[in-house]
Amino acid sequence: MSAECVIGVDLGGTKVLAGVLDGELNVHNRVYRSVHGLPQGELIEVIVAAVEEVRAAADAEISAVGFGIPCLIDQRTGVATMAVNLPIRDMPFRDVMAERLGLPVHVDNDANMAALAEFRAGAAVGVTDAVVLTIGTGIGGGLILNGRLYRGAIGSGAELGHMVIEVDGPRCQGNCPNHGCLEVLASGTALAREGTRIAGERSDSLLGRALADGRTVNGALVTELAHDGDQAAIDTLALIGRNLGVGIANYLNIFNPDVVVIGGGVIAAGELLMAPAREEAARRALPTMRDHGRIVVASFGPEAGMVGAGALALDELGKTRPEGSVS
Amino acid sequence: MSAECVIGVDLGGTKVLAGVLDGELNVHNRVYRSVHGLPQGELIEVIVAAVEEVRAAADAEISAVGFGIPCLIDQRTGVATMAVNLPIRDMPFRDVMAERLGLPVHVDNDANMAALAEFRAGAAVGVTDAVVLTIGTGIGGGLILNGRLYRGAIGSGAELGHMVIEVDGPRCQGNCPNHGCLEVLASGTALAREGTRIAGERSDSLLGRALADGRTVNGALVTELAHDGDQAAIDTLALIGRNLGVGIANYLNIFNPDVVVIGGGVIAAGELLMAPAREEAARRALPTMRDHGRIVVASFGPEAGMVGAGALALDELGKTRPEGSVS
Repeated sequence: MSAECVIGVDLGGTKVLAGVLDGELNVHNRVYRSVHGLPQGELIEVIVAAVEEVRAAADAEISAVGFGIPCLIDQRTGVATMAVNLPIRDMPFRDVMAERLGLPVHVDNDANMAALAEFRAGAAVGVTDAVVLTIGTGIGGGLILNGRLYRGAIGSGAELGHMVIEVDGPRCQGNCPNHGCLEVLASGTALAREGTRIAGERSDSLLGRALADGRTVNGALVTELAHDGDQAAIDTLALIGRNLGVGIANYLNIFNPDVVVIGGGVIAAGELLMAPAREEAARRALPTMRDHGRIVVASFGPEAGMVGAGALALDELGKTRPEGSVS
Repeated sequence: MSAECVIGVDLGGTKVLAGVLDGELNVHNRVYRSVHGLPQGELIEVIVAAVEEVRAAADAEISAVGFGIPCLIDQRTGVATMAVNLPIRDMPFRDVMAERLGLPVHVDNDANMAALAEFRAGAAVGVTDAVVLTIGTGIGGGLILNGRLYRGAIGSGAELGHMVIEVDGPRCQGNCPNHGCLEVLASGTALAREGTRIAGERSDSLLGRALADGRTVNGALVTELAHDGDQAAIDTLALIGRNLGVGIANYLNIFNPDVVVIGGGVIAAGELLMAPAREEAARRALPTMRDHGRIVVASFGPEAGMVGAGALALDELGKTRPEGSVS
């Protein structure tokens, strides 16, 4: 292990994952804890304990900690201004963690961290401009522009799931007041909703029978049945894939990126989702952008946020290190 | 006039506007020529003549020329890869102009140049992140991100008008293969189309009578009648304004900008367009972005592209000047 290590932490609505990373972003130790439904005080204790545990297990000195959290963050203050699934809204998360851990702490949106992981060590290595969509229950977004993470004026940018693609579409989720966002039309939630609808319409399909048998139609079930060859499940994934493709076309036109990276749990559907997405994007994007921008699957799976948070901590170390010193 | 000046040129589908600018972006001489319908050879001659005329009129030495052109540009080569209204597609525009003019030439998309003008001397001075929409027959886009113009991986980025907001909406214009783009729902073309439709439905209105009298219902007429108080015309502008507001909400969520600047000919409608746009954006954007991002009218009118092209030429001079030299 190299002399200088950091800890990357991915905090989700239900779990915290902390890992020790070296300067090449190799992960050396991991700790995983449930945080489901915890009130703020207990949540903070569980996070601190997880970080301390992984720190104790590391055989190297830890220089800083990076956090990816599912919140909008005002980077001027380190405060989460919007947090859907965690009780940390309006809390000075960065400062609290720095005080508790006695280490420099850096905090960013979890989807930004996934984008940074892909840029440093994954599907967006070597490019200058990348759009990264992380698709699970919702859709998180991260932007690499001109070779660096783009955060927006106060650090809350790249909410790429909250782009309207259907002006009178369904009401969006959580704290979003909008209608017809990409998130409500191409996320795991959309997959479950459309899968349930299609199951009801096609009772002879495996999907329809699963619904009739009382099973919950969620993204995992639709994906499983589609891989088994069920046409109703395949059609559901294609519908969601086409919606995703509309969003990808928008981002190709807006950013003229080198690459659009699609990650998150929904990607378990593989080409059953990606092929319709690519076709729809190719039909809609301006030719110049379409011909330049590759549409690829993310390199990192569930550890993307943790690896990216570690990369953030390493980046920030680099900025504070005196010029000319050896890393 | 300061010692060092540049020429900014705005090339449109029907006209070329060239001006001499000093280091503070003051415009000192202007030449305006029609280029409507000219074939490529004649078009180049008219542009060269316009630039030479304004250069001869200037009482300062000209160091460089900047062009804003209504094309997608591959900045690696200076070639226009897409040009809707001008016969310069696949032509090495930058190199041809540099050879003909005997000066350093820099070329960028006209909407990018309008954004640069607003950033250097207009409604986006002093911010780090700005989204600039220029709304005329189409919708051009420019992005100032992290305090600099964002161009995309090969220089064709920020086609902000070609973002789908209505997945099954009307076919878009020109070379765009898409449906339901912001451009087809919130441009001057959309204003004319919806104004014609509403005029047909409301024959008692001034707008309806104008149509019955055989007048062409275009953006200028709708705007004029709305300023006269005609409710049908006011409703038409409100409809287009709300569509624009959907696009603004998307850009607030994507970029978390300090400011969204709306310019172009359609802005003659003033608050009759802007108020509904602001209301719709406020209804739809995430609260953090909504509360930070101002929505304002552009400072520059028809000269935005020329001023921005001059700013581009000045920026590029700054890059090539030896370090420590006095500007």
